[in-house]
Order: sequence, then structure tokens, then C-alpha cells
Amino acid sequence: MCGIAGIVANFEVSGSLYWALYALQHRGQESGGISTYDNGTVHKYKGYGLVSEVFTSDILQSLSGKTGLGHVRYPTTGGSKPENIQPFNFLFRGHSLSIVHNGNLVNTNDLRYEYEGRGHIFSTTSDTEVIAAILANELIHGHTVGEAISFCMRSIRGSYAVIFMLDGVLYAFRDPLGIKPLCLGEFEDGGHIVASESVALDAVGAKLLRDVAPGESIRLKADKVYPRQIMTAKSPAHCVFEYIYFARADSVIDGISVYDVRQKTGFLLAKEAPAGADIVSPVPDSGTAAATGYAAASGIPFREALIKNRYTGRTFIMPTQAKREMAVRMKLNPVRGHITGKSVVLVDDSIVRGTTSRRIIALVREFGAKEVHLRVASPPIIAPCYLGTDFPTREELISNHKSVAEVREAIEATSLAHISLEGLVEAIGVPCSHLCTGCLTGKYPLAIDGEEEESHGIEMIDPYKNPEL
Amino acid sequence: MCGIAGIVANFEVSGSLYWALYALQHRGQESGGISTYDNGTVHKYKGYGLVSEVFTSDILQSLSGKTGLGHVRYPTTGGSKPENIQPFNFLFRGHSLSIVHNGNLVNTNDLRYEYEGRGHIFSTTSDTEVIAAILANELIHGHTVGEAISFCMRSIRGSYAVIFMLDGVLYAFRDPLGIKPLCLGEFEDGGHIVASESVALDAVGAKLLRDVAPGESIRLKADKVYPRQIMTAKSPAHCVFEYIYFARADSVIDGISVYDVRQKTGFLLAKEAPAGADIVSPVPDSGTAAATGYAAASGIPFREALIKNRYTGRTFIMPTQAKREMAVRMKLNPVRGHITGKSVVLVDDSIVRGTTSRRIIALVREFGAKEVHLRVASPPIIAPCYLGTDFPTREELISNHKSVAEVREAIEATSLAHISLEGLVEAIGVPCSHLCTGCLTGKYPLAIDGEEEESHGIEMIDPYKNPEL
Amino acid sequence: MCGIAGIVANFEVSGSLYWALYALQHRGQESGGISTYDNGTVHKYKGYGLVSEVFTSDILQSLSGKTGLGHVRYPTTGGSKPENIQPFNFLFRGHSLSIVHNGNLVNTNDLRYEYEGRGHIFSTTSDTEVIAAILANELIHGHTVGEAISFCMRSIRGSYAVIFMLDGVLYAFRDPLGIKPLCLGEFEDGGHIVASESVALDAVGAKLLRDVAPGESIRLKADKVYPRQIMTAKSPAHCVFEYIYFARADSVIDGISVYDVRQKTGFLLAKEAPAGADIVSPVPDSGTAAATGYAAASGIPFREALIKNRYTGRTFIMPTQAKREMAVRMKLNPVRGHITGKSVVLVDDSIVRGTTSRRIIALVREFGAKEVHLRVASPPIIAPCYLGTDFPTREELISNHKSVAEVREAIEATSLAHISLEGLVEAIGVPCSHLCTGCLTGKYPLAIDGEEEESHGIEMIDPYKNPEL
Amino acid sequence: MCGIAGIVANFEVSGSLYWALYALQHRGQESGGISTYDNGTVHKYKGYGLVSEVFTSDILQSLSGKTGLGHVRYPTTGGSKPENIQPFNFLFRGHSLSIVHNGNLVNTNDLRYEYEGRGHIFSTTSDTEVIAAILANELIHGHTVGEAISFCMRSIRGSYAVIFMLDGVLYAFRDPLGIKPLCLGEFEDGGHIVASESVALDAVGAKLLRDVAPGESIRLKADKVYPRQIMTAKSPAHCVFEYIYFARADSVIDGISVYDVRQKTGFLLAKEAPAGADIVSPVPDSGTAAATGYAAASGIPFREALIKNRYTGRTFIMPTQAKREMAVRMKLNPVRGHITGKSVVLVDDSIVRGTTSRRIIALVREFGAKEVHLRVASPPIIAPCYLGTDFPTREELISNHKSVAEVREAIEATSLAHISLEGLVEAIGVPCSHLCTGCLTGKYPLAIDGEEEESHGIEMIDPYKNPEL
Repeated sequence: MCGIAGIVANFEVSGSLYWALYALQHRGQESGGISTYDNGTVHKYKGYGLVSEVFTSDILQSLSGKTGLGHVRYPTTGGSKPENIQPFNFLFRGHSLSIVHNGNLVNTNDLRYEYEGRGHIFSTTSDTEVIAAILANELIHGHTVGEAISFCMRSIRGSYAVIFMLDGVLYAFRDPLGIKPLCLGEFEDGGHIVASESVALDAVGAKLLRDVAPGESIRLKADKVYPRQIMTAKSPAHCVFEYIYFARADSVIDGISVYDVRQKTGFLLAKEAPAGADIVSPVPDSGTAAATGYAAASGIPFREALIKNRYTGRTFIMPTQAKREMAVRMKLNPVRGHITGKSVVLVDDSIVRGTTSRRIIALVREFGAKEVHLRVASPPIIAPCYLGTDFPTREELISNHKSVAEVREAIEATSLAHISLEGLVEAIGVPCSHLCTGCLTGKYPLAIDGEEEESHGIEMIDPYKNPEL
Repeated sequence: MCGIAGIVANFEVSGSLYWALYALQHRGQESGGISTYDNGTVHKYKGYGLVSEVFTSDILQSLSGKTGLGHVRYPTTGGSKPENIQPFNFLFRGHSLSIVHNGNLVNTNDLRYEYEGRGHIFSTTSDTEVIAAILANELIHGHTVGEAISFCMRSIRGSYAVIFMLDGVLYAFRDPLGIKPLCLGEFEDGGHIVASESVALDAVGAKLLRDVAPGESIRLKADKVYPRQIMTAKSPAHCVFEYIYFARADSVIDGISVYDVRQKTGFLLAKEAPAGADIVSPVPDSGTAAATGYAAASGIPFREALIKNRYTGRTFIMPTQAKREMAVRMKLNPVRGHITGKSVVLVDDSIVRGTTSRRIIALVREFGAKEVHLRVASPPIIAPCYLGTDFPTREELISNHKSVAEVREAIEATSLAHISLEGLVEAIGVPCSHLCTGCLTGKYPLAIDGEEEESHGIEMIDPYKNPEL
Repeated sequence: MCGIAGIVANFEVSGSLYWALYALQHRGQESGGISTYDNGTVHKYKGYGLVSEVFTSDILQSLSGKTGLGHVRYPTTGGSKPENIQPFNFLFRGHSLSIVHNGNLVNTNDLRYEYEGRGHIFSTTSDTEVIAAILANELIHGHTVGEAISFCMRSIRGSYAVIFMLDGVLYAFRDPLGIKPLCLGEFEDGGHIVASESVALDAVGAKLLRDVAPGESIRLKADKVYPRQIMTAKSPAHCVFEYIYFARADSVIDGISVYDVRQKTGFLLAKEAPAGADIVSPVPDSGTAAATGYAAASGIPFREALIKNRYTGRTFIMPTQAKREMAVRMKLNPVRGHITGKSVVLVDDSIVRGTTSRRIIALVREFGAKEVHLRVASPPIIAPCYLGTDFPTREELISNHKSVAEVREAIEATSLAHISLEGLVEAIGVPCSHLCTGCLTGKYPLAIDGEEEESHGIEMIDPYKNPEL
Repeated sequence: MCGIAGIVANFEVSGSLYWALYALQHRGQESGGISTYDNGTVHKYKGYGLVSEVFTSDILQSLSGKTGLGHVRYPTTGGSKPENIQPFNFLFRGHSLSIVHNGNLVNTNDLRYEYEGRGHIFSTTSDTEVIAAILANELIHGHTVGEAISFCMRSIRGSYAVIFMLDGVLYAFRDPLGIKPLCLGEFEDGGHIVASESVALDAVGAKLLRDVAPGESIRLKADKVYPRQIMTAKSPAHCVFEYIYFARADSVIDGISVYDVRQKTGFLLAKEAPAGADIVSPVPDSGTAAATGYAAASGIPFREALIKNRYTGRTFIMPTQAKREMAVRMKLNPVRGHITGKSVVLVDDSIVRGTTSRRIIALVREFGAKEVHLRVASPPIIAPCYLGTDFPTREELISNHKSVAEVREAIEATSLAHISLEGLVEAIGVPCSHLCTGCLTGKYPLAIDGEEEESHGIEMIDPYKNPEL
């Protein structure tokens, strides 16, 4: 999971890129970077930390230019190494290429092997460098940018939302299933922005035009956008976890409000799995929308049993004497008066390993709860994700090898219920076949070694019928 | 507003002091410090920043000892200077004195003048150094600790919750009106803690025994607490703003749950000032409890129109090109789908200058709200605070010189209503005479130069009838 | 050992104070601080590290004002604690007092006890706070500044060069024996400076007027200096170690060039203790001047056998595997070609514990020296210093309990010789009775508990005959 | 100019690499890095700053392995960008390649163009990446390491001392003219080291075996070194500036003591260009050895007129009021007593732009020198360097377009003289044809676009007669 943004405009873009990345910070807190293009020169800066820590006013001013792109990173493939911080910047035959990528390829190793044979040696372990190598290789051999993108999309398999800047011209493309989100916006005073989520557009005062279509490639100018459909599929496969957890609640992804999906999930969950209780409380922050839905549908009062600590700072320290000072207490503050002697419904977004759920339930019980009913706004996660989510292995996923009853026992909840897959799909409001539910069903929308595929019929569009962008 | 804590126990206390201060972080983010006493030596460390930034595991280990105290600071009297970071540590005649203080004295200048005449020269502008000078002066002249505390409490006027450590023995005392909170807890495995709020006790697994009584002084040992009532008053004057805003929602202060006061305020506010609207939304974070109360009482659905940004980092930077990137957007993310075309009730805790309210309402309107009704969970603030709250001058307090109608116009709300003072008092659940409502009424519970006093009848207890603690 | 400076001028002084302290950096690298006075306000800043690390351009600009003083600190009495960083700043009865001090008092404890009885409680363990307490106490009781200085100088015993700023007026005074240096300079464009060494005057383009006389007190204005002799002595007792080691070689102290003293010492040492050798090499940096003298007098070629590492950085780290990577090699690089098979005279300034000498000789031997003759430009150090030098205890001073022959054996030198006391005195060029040679003779120029005094006949001047400055 | 080192041993090498780089710090202070190889994994760390700032004890421990290499960087080709910090680390076909390089190629652009055509896209602007691309390309196409090195050396033109580590095996090679230094050492307890200068060997207790021969390639094992001569030349072309300025004085380069060259240069300079003066003083630090030679030969006493400031810290700040506080004073402290009224010979290593010389002479005059005779231990620099020295353009080189008399006038010296080329060559002690004197003569030892070549007859050795190392 990462966040990306690119802007071309009639004004200097580094400030707006900053705010766009700032708004996408929830997609990655490890590192951030921006590259801009000004009159033949690529200006670039990147570092570890939050966007507000990496960049200063002086740095932003040094990033001059009316075209640029940026990235916030949450590490998936590749580990935490300085050379993996994006954007990546390359030089070849006098051309400059800067590139950012959100998603995960499943055929990286094959492509690395092939391009090493063609003469490229890799500085990083990132699949983004593979995408860059393919694009550069095509361009060096005299192909057009459009041909290079087509060839690249044909070669790579997986989830990808890519923005790149070639000699100061901005391009973007999205995988044929639209697994990872990418949307397009317009500045009133001249300019376009492409970013992972609509909140980045809100943050800079840009108007949401539409999502970049699955399989689409676009070239962005300040005054116009040149689209070209490169690939098609029978149906998209939008990542369900964007709606469940990743995206910011105030985003609109592929036309659907994330907050409303979450609230409706809570509503349906209350119907599917009612609980006789005194209060409904979210596990903050991600369970809040679902909890309000659950409360509204059940009529049980909404009351926060747990309040998130506003001042956790950066450094996580843990003195040795700490039996009585448990880690979860650092982040969550129980409201004793809402808990003691009460029966509590806790609404959380998901269960991964079960460890956190167990600790939270223990904490609520320690503060005197009579009963703790856990309601989960996603179906059980039974399989790993190969397409951009950093889930652990099958062995570590508690729901992979335990029934709901067994999980309930393990986390010591009074009762436990998940929303059904049907309920979740209803809340999202598109057919199930339009979603990637690999982690919930074990069936993936494209070929992955050793896993079951439910083909979405991806095809290239005949290039002769599809003139260059 | 500051947060203080002191612990004496059968175990090393620096780790628990760390977590106690961590839990009190909302009371002051400017700086933090801890002093401990181990076998004749005072170990001490303090610095600027959040508790989690000031202290490291190594530093905590170097703060050895089974007695100690700490402080988090929000600057009131004295300005932001390194020498003002507490605890203050003094040496005299081979004795060591460490001291922390929450509150504000109103006769500091008189006392400084007097003690300068007696030979003390001051290194800081803090009223805490005045308290220390008085205590030390009495002790040097051969008085007992109990006499020194009595004399000190007789001399100083204002709000104060004080913890001090004299040669490794821990003491605490609270002003006769109990303006600032201070509570007492017990560790299961031997030890006592005194702290500003009960959440600090929760954070270290200590049990809340009771509040330190107004006018009471206590000596703490690991196995026993020695109380002594020094002063009395006809009634206490607990600060209403602790309930409205300062205290953490999950605290219990002077026997009353802060969250419940806030939620009940929202409930009563819905009765007093209904609004025909599509959704009720808090201004996060402090309006959340009141907003749930308002929603429940009004039947209007609770939906977050604004979501607080989780990743704001430390550095506040503002590139010059920023017309379109307003500051308030950094902290609050509007949920477009809940706002566009809707009539919104926003619930906030208070209005001080009016600037923030105006910006938030403009932001919500910009995202398409049809109507924005602001409901405020406190009466208008019309007068300054001399007793520990960092309110601006009368001139800057918008409600001091504007009627509610005029404020509504200034902040461009569709409608505006405050809870009545009666409503607030009902929500707190004690007689109005037990509260300090100076900022809401202009009448203060003790003598302040140029202000109206509503005397609470403070008296010293006859020391002959009140044996030493 | 510390460095101090004060300036009053027709221009903003913080920049010049910065460069003055920068030039005095060799006197203390632990911490630095500056206070200035501008229109009723004292501006101040201090911190750990080198002057160039503590201050930034922004900080210097914030230190506005045409009067100010500063300090660089090397810890002697008081330990390394933030509150001990000077200048100290005090407030009393509306007056502001900032003070810096170089030297060491020998009756600190008596004075602390007395002033605690008078009502002062101490925040630090520094003897500078004692000096401030005495001055403030006198001023509060209605005495004039001149009376306060007189009384203070009568009360304190030890070495002291003090600069203080009272409500923006700059004063300085020096102990009656002139143990620690203090000199006075003038700016061409209006202003005066007082500082520990003349190099500080060179650094800011000021002209050296004269040294502050032993027992003298001065008030400085931009256009004039008001002197007043407070105390007299039969003869001064200038610290010999300033000439041997402390002062920067390019300083002129009490009228004598430090470099010339050092070079002449080397010259005389060659006469007193010749050595048949191939080269003469300094132990850098402090032995360089003496080594050039030794080479010139002996006719043996001057060649550097050891070169100082220019890039040692701040962090001293020492991996565990380090048998082969000895600490001394980090700082000194042997020139193999000058050493292998050669007989080498090494000239060093002094021997304290003997450890460093032993390591250096071993290093030179390891690089193949046939013989290593150590020549020391000071007599053996046999007694501790109570007056400002951080020598270790008698037990740790190798020359206290070992003869020169035994020391030679311990440090494994081929031969070892010190300059005689007579030689050193001849090099300095003043009578021996004008110097403090406590560490070399065990006889001190003032009364120190348990040590032998060689009285210098200190007396107060009749104040009736000595009108106020 | 950079410094490089590689070690393979029977022990963990990161500590020794640290000290080796520490000893090479004078060759580059911008950044440093180390890569080690342990059981299939490459551990790596690099950063900006001095070696002692980049690495901590923890970091060194994490760099496990018995083989490794490191680099300190002074920026030449490529600018100051994080991605240019060496070692570079690459991955291809499961192999790992780490590489460091000191020197400068003159056909980088041609090679970049060619390898971009073969499929490599470059992440950096460094010529080291070109060397890596060539090596990797050969290896991927099935050639042996020996063939890859041969092919690489045939392809690249310029100065280069390269160390690389391929899957944990350490190799080094040096350009056929031996322009940049590289020497080989042995650890007593098993292991070999290859490094830019012999001081790195001294620093880790290794014995200097020999220099790596010009045109030689070696493979290093802990117990043995496998040499192979790849190229030959009629004569080497060792860089004269290593002897004049770059190398540390205590190094031995290509069999010659750097200190002795410098001292002898001073000696010959005194014969060539005598000056009637009172003292001879170096411009510290680099003029010291030559000044002692000049003093010895002339009989004029050696006395330091300028002393280098030991405590300059890192931050260079310059308040605006600074007319009287000139930058050069920050670094050099004039000894007034040696200057006032005296005639001074200043000995410096070289004149580049003339600016520094002018400032120093002005400073010495300001302190009262009667005459200032500048003697320069190198001939005039009249042409740029393409082979690793960061000289400015011809226009900025003052001696390129001004006669010695004109330069004297420009820098306001009383007299000015340079050592003759013949004198310098005599001091070094090898035939002039064995040196690269491009910057002094404008004639370069290899073909450089637009410059005059004096061919050294470089040839490849017949590979059939030269079995693989």
C-alpha cells in the first residue's frame, strides 16, 4: 500500500504535491518523495518519515517546476532500504524518467531475469524499477511513449497504478482490473492532478473529474488530458480492502463513498448479527463509521468505550518493568464509566492475526465489562494478498485455520460475528464479480503461482484501432 | 494547564511516571520532566517535546529510585523558556527539594517581592519557584514540613495542585477550592500515586482511591497515606472547563465522569436548541461526546462531516503559494458525501476567538453544505481566566463584546446556540456554587485584583486541633 | 577552565560575542551561552556543544541589544548538568542580573551555608550562583553596585574573573592575585570588550588596551571605562598553566606572548636536557612551539613524527573487536618514514597521569623508533589545583609519588626530562613570586584547607579613599 | 578525490573498514559507506558526513561479515546527491555486486551511451555506475570475472582505482598509468587489505606489502592474493598532486614518503627562491612540512605566524554585521607577536584561484607584518585536471592567465615564488616521465578531448599469455 500523486499546472506544483501527499499519508508513513521538472532539470527530494517531517518550506521551494509527482511509501516488496524510497529517477540518452507506483506485481522475478539478460542491472529490489526498466528499454529502442506503455502493461502482471514523468511530460496508467485506485482531477486555475484517492484532490482544491479507468493510460497537460484505453477486462476487480480499511473514510473511490460503505456495513452487520448490549463502541479509528451504522440499525446507544490517544509521538519505547503498562494502553484509553458492569458491542474493521483483538477485549474486560461482543465489518481473512496488501502468511492469519467459534474462544469475546461476503458486497453496491476478494475467498482475479484464478478475461486492445495518446 | 504525577512504591518508579505523564499528555505538550530519588541522590531529566520524545529507555533507566514525580507543561505564566520546565530542583543545607505545580497563583508578584527582600533571588518567572521559596524558607528556619505546607498554603492565593519531594519523601497538596484536579491511587503490589487525572492511574494499573480533598495535604508512603486537612471552604469551586474541554474524556474528576458530562450536555443542548438538519457531526475530537448526545436526543443521524487527520506530524509548514491549501484542511478532512446538499449540525465544545469556528463553517460550506447549524457545549466565554486557563484578553474573547446573534453573523453559521449555564451545571450534576464559572459569569471564587469576587469562605483550620501529618 | 566575554558597543553585539566565544572555544567545549540586554529585556540562549553548534544565525539575530556577555564552559565544580550552563540569569525586584565566571572558589560551601540561612535556595551546584547570590543580596539591601562588588570580593576566596550585566550595564572584576586572565579591548567604531584572552579581541577586530588588573573592578560603557581598584596584593599569582597549556598560543596574557613563552621553554629545555637524536618532534598540537624551540637550540632537525588527525568528528565510538585499533591512533598519525630506525625527541607540554605519554611512546616504538626521548615543557605536576584546573587527585598524578626516573620507566621512554621550575620562570620572564605554582610546588598563594599557603598579602583598599566606579 | 578500502580476513571486518576509512577521511568528507558480505547477504550502510558521524557502534555490528569494502567521498563528477554515495550495490541474476571507485573517467559519456543502447538505464550520474554496468554486462553474458575486468579496463579511459566485491569475493584493479594510488597490506592474524593510502593500513595494524601495480588486477583471499597484470605502459603517470596536497603526510605512495617529498620541496624552494626574512611560517596545515624544509635550508627561524583553529565545528554561520569578523579568521589565528614589525616568509602548498592567498596575506599584514613573502611548494597550476582533481576551469585558475609577477600583484605579496617543475620532480625522486603533470604543463598522459597528449604507450597484455587470476 502506497500513495501516489502527479500534477501538471500553470503554477509551481511542489506545494500542491506536498498537500496531496499529506492527504494520502494514511497510505504510507515510512517515507516520502517528490520530483519536479523545471526547464530541463529534474529536482528531487526524498527521505524517511511523515511528509511533514521530510519536507521543509525551503526544500519545497527548491523543487521548482510546473510538473511533478510524489509518493508516500508503506513497504511491501523490497524491505526498508533508502534506495527503495520513491520516486525513482533515471537518466538515459539525455532523457530523464521519474516514476512512482502503487501496487504489487506478481511476475517480478521473471521480468528481472529477462531484463538482466538484456543488460539492465538493478539497484533496488523494488518492482517499480522493473516497470522503469521496461519503459526505458522500449524508449531507447526507438518506440513511442504510447508503445512503451502498451508493451509495459502487456509485460507486467499484478496490481499497479503508475505515474511517470518523461522529460517533464506527465503520464499515468492503471492495471486492467483497476485493483488499486487512481483518480483524475482538475484545477480551476489551470492544471490537472492524478492521485490515489479523491482526498488528495480535496486537499489541493481540485475538482474530481473521474477515476482513471482500469486498463487506461493518460497523458496530462495543464489544459487537457489525452486518454487511451490500452487493455480491457470483462469486469474490474477493485480491491475490497480499500473500502474496508485502506482508504480514508472521506474518499470516493471508483464512484463510491468509502464512509457510506463502512456505515452501511455496520447497518447490515446489526441485522445479520444482532447483540443484546448496553452500548455500541467502535475500535478507533477505523471502526467508527461501521459502529455508527450498527448503533443506528440496532437502536443500541453509540458510546465510545475506547478513546484513541491523541499524543502518541514517534518513539515507541518500552521499559522493562512493564507488566502493568501494556502497549495497547498507550494507544487506546478505556472510558471506565461506559464499561464497568456493561455489556459492550465493539465494532472493528477486520481481524488479521487476532492478537490486537484479544488485547483490546482483555483491556475492556479489565475495566469491568460484563460482556464483550465483537462485530467485524469484514468477512474472515483466510488467504494472503499478492496484490499490494501486507497481510501475513496463511499460518499467521487466524481465520485461515480457525472457525469463527474457535477465533471467538481465542480472543475471549463473549460473541463474535463477521459481516457476510454478501453483506459486504451489498454495502459496496457493485456486483461481487467487480471486486477482488482474494483474501476473503482464496480466489484471485489473475494468475498467481499456486493459487486459484477466477479469470476476468483481460485483453489488449488492437493497437491499430487505438491511436496513440 | 499542566499535568502532574508523583509515585512512591516498592518498585522502580520512572517507568510508571513515564506512562502516567504519557496519559496526561493532553494537559501539556510543550515539555516534560521527571525527578526521582535514590539513596540520597536526585536523578532528573527534562526537555522540550512530547513525553515520548523527551525520554528514552536509557534515560528512564538512569532515573533510578522508588520515589519520584513528573510534569507535562502547557505554558501559562512565565513564557516558553528552558529554565521554566518542571520539575524544579533545589538544594539547601544538604536537603533536596523537587517540586511540580498545576495551576496559577494570583498573588505571585507580592510574594516575589517579599521573598526577594528575604534574600531569595529568582532564576525563573514561574510561580512554582515562589511556592518552592516559601517552603524552603520555612524549612531552613527550622519549621516542620507540615508547618511549611500550612504556611505556604496560607501565603499563596490562586489555583494549585502541588506535588513535592523533600529528601525522597513525597507530599502533595491542593488549593482550598479544589479548582485544579488531583487524585490519589494505589498499586496492587505496593505503592501510591497522586496525579492530575484518573487516566494516569488507569495507565499504570493503579486503583483510584479518591480525590485529594480541597485544602488537603498528604504525605505518601508506599504502604500508607497520611492525610491532613489544612484549610476549609464553604464550598469547592471546581473548574468547569476541566469538564468542558481540558480533561481527557475517560477521566473521572471529583467523582464525575467527564465523558458523561459531555454527552449529557449534548443531550440537553438538543432540547434547549433543536435544529432541523440531516446529520449531526462533531467538530473532532473534543465535540464527539456532546455530538453523540445531541444525535441521540434529537433523533438526527450521527455522521462525521469532518474527520481528524491522523498524521499531522510535528512541523507546521506553509508554502507561500497556498491560497488553495488552507491550514484548517491540514487537520480536518471533510467527508464530501455527508455534506454536499445537506443541512448539518456541528457540535463543538466552545468558542473562544471565533476564528476557528468561522474557518470550519466556511470549509463545510465549501464542500456543499446547505445549512450549517453550530451548537456549542458551553455557555459563551465572556471573561478571562486567572486560575490556570490560557484564555486571551477580554478584547479577544468574541462573546465578551458580541451577542450570540452577532457571533452567528461573524462566523457565518446558519444558526448558533450555546448550552445554558443551568444546562451545563445540570450535566455536571453538582450545585453551581461548587464550580468556578469565572470565565462564563465574570464572578470569581476568590479575590482577584479588579474583578468581582463571590466569596467561598476559605479558612485555615486551627493547627492545634489538626495534628501534623 | 572556562572562557568569558562581555561587550558594550554602539552596534548590536551578539555577532561579536559569538566570534569572541568562538576564539575562546579552546577554554571549554562542553557548552556555550550568550545573554544580551535590549531596552529592558534580557535575551538569552545557551546549549550543549561548540559555539558553532549552539548558535545559528537566527538565534544570534534574536539576541538583540548593544550590551551582552557570554561563556564557554569546561566543567570543573558542579558536574555536567543543563542548569549549570552559563550565563546565569536572575531577576529580583524588577532588576535583571546576568553573570559569567571563570575560576574556582575555595570557600563555596561556607558561603552556600551562609546564604541559605539568609533565605536563598540554590538551583545549581555552581560557585557562580554563590557570587550572584552575594551581589543580589547586597543590591536588594540597598547597597550600591560598587559596594556590592567590594563586599563580594571580600567574601569570596579563590580564582575569579567575573563579568556581569545589571539592568544592561556591564561590569567586570578579577581576583586580587590575577590568577585567571581577563583583558580589556576597544572597538574602533565605539565600544569596549572584556574577555579571558586577547585572541577574543583579535577575533572581533578590537584593540587590546590592557589587562584588567588583579583586584580591579571596572564598569564598561561604549565610550569609556570606569576603573576602581578594590583589593591589592604584594604580588600577583598568575596561573603558570595558562602559559604552559591552557591559553591559545597566539594570546598575550598579562603582557606576555604565550607562544614565545612556550618556544623559549623548548629552547631552555634543550640546554638543560640535551638528547642525541635524529629528529625533534612535537606531540601535537600543544607541544609544537616548545619543539621548535628545542630544535633551534639543539640543532636537531624539526620533523613531525606524529601528525594530528584533522577529521576526528564528534562521536567517539569503539567497536569491540578493537585490539588492533587503539584510541590514540584515532587522533595521532605516526609518520613511519620519520620514525623507523630513528632516535626521536618528543616534546610535550606536561605529564598528568602518564597514561597518554605511555601510549604515545608505545605507538612511536611500534612504528620502529630506535629511541624515544621525552622532553616536557613543564616541571612535574605534584599537587592538585583548587583554583580552576581540572587536575586529578594526588594519587592519580604520576609525578606526585614517582621520581622522574620511575616515571621514565613507567612510560617506557629512553630518557625523560622536565624543564626546571627556574627555566620555566625564566621563559615567562616575571619573578617566580608573581606566579601561582601550586601544582608544581604544593605551595598555594592563598589559604586552602589542608594545604600550605605562601601568603601574597591580599588586602582591601580603604573604601573611603577609593571612590565608587 | 575519494578514499577507498577493501578487506577480507579471518575476522569480522566492519570495525577495521571503519578505521581504514577514518584514516582516509582527508580524501573526502562529504559522505561515507560500507558494504559487507555475510553468508549470502550484502549488508550496507551509507550517509552524509564524516565517517565518525555516519557510523555508530550498532551500525558497525549490523554490518557483519569477513569481507567488505568502503568509501569516503569528495564530489567530482556527479554532484552532491544521495544516490551518488558509494559503495554502489547491484543485483543481477542472483549475484550481488558492490563497488567503490577513486578516480575519474574521461570517456564516461561514450560508455553511458553505449550501455544505454545495450539496455542499462542509469540511476546516477557517477562514472562508477558505468564501470559496474560494464562488469555486470560481461558477467551476465557468461564471461569469467577475469575476462570482465580485462574488458572493463580496455573499455574505460582515465584514472581509476577500483575495489569490488562479487558474491563476497574481493577484487581490485588500478589504471595502467597508476594515476590514483592503491596499496596492498596484510594482517598478522590472517587477512588482506587494499586501500588508497598506506595510512589506512597503519590505522588497522596491517603491514604494507606493496602498491597494486599500474594495470594490475588482484583477487584477495584472507590467506593469499592472486595477482594478474592486465595492461602495461611504457611508464606510469602518478598524480603529482597526491604528493603536493592530497595524500596524508604520513603516507607512503608508490614507495615514496609524502612528508619527505614535501619537506624536500621546501628545502629546494629555499635554494631556488631565497628571501631575506625574520621568520618562516607555514600556511597550516598543508604547508607545514615544506616550511620546515624551507626554514632548515635557509637558516631563517621556523615560527608559526598562523595557528589553525582546532574547534571550527560543523556549521558555518555568518551574521550579517560581519565586516569585522572575516571568514578566514574563523580558521586561522594570527600570532601577533610573530608578525608585528616582522618580515615573514609564508609557505603554502599551492595557489589555485588566488583568493585564499590574498586573504591570508591581508590578514598577516593587518596584524602588522612588514613584508610577506609567499613561497609555493608547487609550480603554477595552469591547466585543469580531468583525472580526479576538482580544479576549477582554466579561467578561474589564476596562474593560467597571469604571470607570477601579476599574481604577486593580485595577491599583494611582497614577493612570490613557486618551486620549479624540475625542483618538484627532484623532490619526488622519480623521472618526470613517470608522473602526471597535466595541471602544471597542460600535457596529459592519455587522450583527452581537446587537450595535448604525451602518450605513455598503454597496451593490453596478450590474454593467452596471461592466465586468469
